[in-house]
Amino acid sequence: MSRALHLTSALSRAYPWVTAPFIVSAPMRVMSGPALAVAVSRAGGLGFLGPNIKTQNTAADLAEATSLVETLRASSSAILPRTAYLPIGVGFQLWSDELDTAVEAVEKFKPCAVWLFAPAGGQKDLDTWSRRIRTVSPGTQIWVQIGTLAEARGLLTGTEKPDAVVVQGAEAGGHGRAKDGLGLIALLPEVADVLAGSQIPVFAAGGIADGRGAAAGLCLGAEGVVMGTRFLAASEARISQGYQGEVVRASDGAVSTTRTLLYNHMRGTFGWPEEYSPRTIVNRSFVEYQAGRPFEELKGLHDEALKAGDEGWGPEGRLATYAGAAIGLIHEVKDAGMIVRDVREQVLERFGVGGEKL
Amino acid sequence: MSRALHLTSALSRAYPWVTAPFIVSAPMRVMSGPALAVAVSRAGGLGFLGPNIKTQNTAADLAEATSLVETLRASSSAILPRTAYLPIGVGFQLWSDELDTAVEAVEKFKPCAVWLFAPAGGQKDLDTWSRRIRTVSPGTQIWVQIGTLAEARGLLTGTEKPDAVVVQGAEAGGHGRAKDGLGLIALLPEVADVLAGSQIPVFAAGGIADGRGAAAGLCLGAEGVVMGTRFLAASEARISQGYQGEVVRASDGAVSTTRTLLYNHMRGTFGWPEEYSPRTIVNRSFVEYQAGRPFEELKGLHDEALKAGDEGWGPEGRLATYAGAAIGLIHEVKDAGMIVRDVREQVLERFGVGGEKL
Repeated sequence: MSRALHLTSALSRAYPWVTAPFIVSAPMRVMSGPALAVAVSRAGGLGFLGPNIKTQNTAADLAEATSLVETLRASSSAILPRTAYLPIGVGFQLWSDELDTAVEAVEKFKPCAVWLFAPAGGQKDLDTWSRRIRTVSPGTQIWVQIGTLAEARGLLTGTEKPDAVVVQGAEAGGHGRAKDGLGLIALLPEVADVLAGSQIPVFAAGGIADGRGAAAGLCLGAEGVVMGTRFLAASEARISQGYQGEVVRASDGAVSTTRTLLYNHMRGTFGWPEEYSPRTIVNRSFVEYQAGRPFEELKGLHDEALKAGDEGWGPEGRLATYAGAAIGLIHEVKDAGMIVRDVREQVLERFGVGGEKL
Repeated sequence: MSRALHLTSALSRAYPWVTAPFIVSAPMRVMSGPALAVAVSRAGGLGFLGPNIKTQNTAADLAEATSLVETLRASSSAILPRTAYLPIGVGFQLWSDELDTAVEAVEKFKPCAVWLFAPAGGQKDLDTWSRRIRTVSPGTQIWVQIGTLAEARGLLTGTEKPDAVVVQGAEAGGHGRAKDGLGLIALLPEVADVLAGSQIPVFAAGGIADGRGAAAGLCLGAEGVVMGTRFLAASEARISQGYQGEVVRASDGAVSTTRTLLYNHMRGTFGWPEEYSPRTIVNRSFVEYQAGRPFEELKGLHDEALKAGDEGWGPEGRLATYAGAAIGLIHEVKDAGMIVRDVREQVLERFGVGGEKL
């Protein structure tokens, strides 16, 4: 295990502030804002901004994150030492984000990494985005999220090799593979075998919410681990209190979460490539949908609940509550930095590296 | 991790021949016969006999295993040192096995462990079986397989506390939870938290086929790991060559395996409690079933394929090929003892215990 408890030299070069084990906060749409991303990187992890409502908003998020990083650096030279690239990453949802706007933002703010997900045009789109980004910002690392063996094989046939591959298992929250997903414990080693010759580092995502899952991800062959839902319960997350309360409250993800497009559609979100669907905490909208209540009625009630704000979430609520199947491991809201430090310590403890800093 | 790399004293007492990490071969119906179970225990693991066609056949398997163990012991005192209980376990399928016959066999052959699975009557049946077995064979350890948080909570309300709990994730082959299963990476830690106060050791099962998955299972909180499908490709497995060839050939379990009752029904197997369905490798029977071909036709073709023998398996075959989603990690048939030793070494290596014996 010494391997995953020490960063490879390539990873150390690209992310010099990161402390092993490599812990990443996922680019969750809107909810992974500047405060969360910067807090994670500040704690020795790698924080990603999520895609935003419009690509132009991501540019604004990058500006805000840049300013947060500058302020931190001004306060102490020990925090996030100066690097050529912004020490946070940014995620794009390829089917909906605008390529030109995204490339412009990357060129201007130079994030250390870009996370590409959900292309409408498969590997070809990944290649296009990667090439365009590398042209304007050669040091920006390209991360690609996949959830199947077929996608891993696709990456090897692409013209642009990614710098990191995130393997997302079926337990993940939010959007993932709709029908051909698989649990990380079986998926990750097989993907790692396919990618072994490429030397591309693999990151584990999906169903990881504490040091146990994180250590497991490393054992499976990952160089680092990604958590999403755990960071929804970070104090820095850009999330409604009602939603965050649900992430803390809910348990038993096997029965309290499900994959469904219902909430997307009630929110007016259409257009996701058909390979994807989101995992969400079940509430009245879904229960009544299963019971046959017409969509238009459900949408009306959803829209009313939206006006009610935080009350709209909960078992009796109606609002979308995208979250992963490991919600039962999340019991409190914590600062993102503490989440990173706690998970790091738990991982080191599991490998018998009793808490000392590596 | 030192915890799972050293057996607890309770485990050491019950299974004195077992070497850490604790590796178990699952009680796969018919296929886990005496030769496989004894080979696994001989290598320092714990082998289980699977349920058989009739409970009376299990008694015959126990007799044969006893004789194999005696022969080994006679050949060298270093192999499987004499213990009060037979150093292999035996699995029963509660909804179909006969309690009286099973209890009689346990009383006569004194297996060190009994693995209880799939009761028709829930916790009450588990309690009845456990009590009856303990009455006739107090040292026989009771293992119970579960796949949900609800079952874990049920165990805590039962009158008979099990000696070990096997937590089976959704990636497992053969029968598991039909609809409320979950990947091991999210399921196991939450179950472990529920059982934490009980001191019952937890074993990880489902989707584990090599040292990566095994080490991951230990990180998640298990005291040991169970493999099923990996041992279908053991030379000692009681399995047709055509079936075994498929386990070695198939890959990408996310798309090449599925949960379906179709093969059960073609084989004439009815009666499984509705909570369960089996994972199997997909072949023509399933593909044509999906395409709408009538069951009676499929059954006819299945029955013909059965007469053809080994040719009946394969992507163009029609026979049941129960297997787990980690089949893509299995590339060759090996002796069971070598499987145990290889996985053990891989686990130790991942924890930086470079191969020396603990």
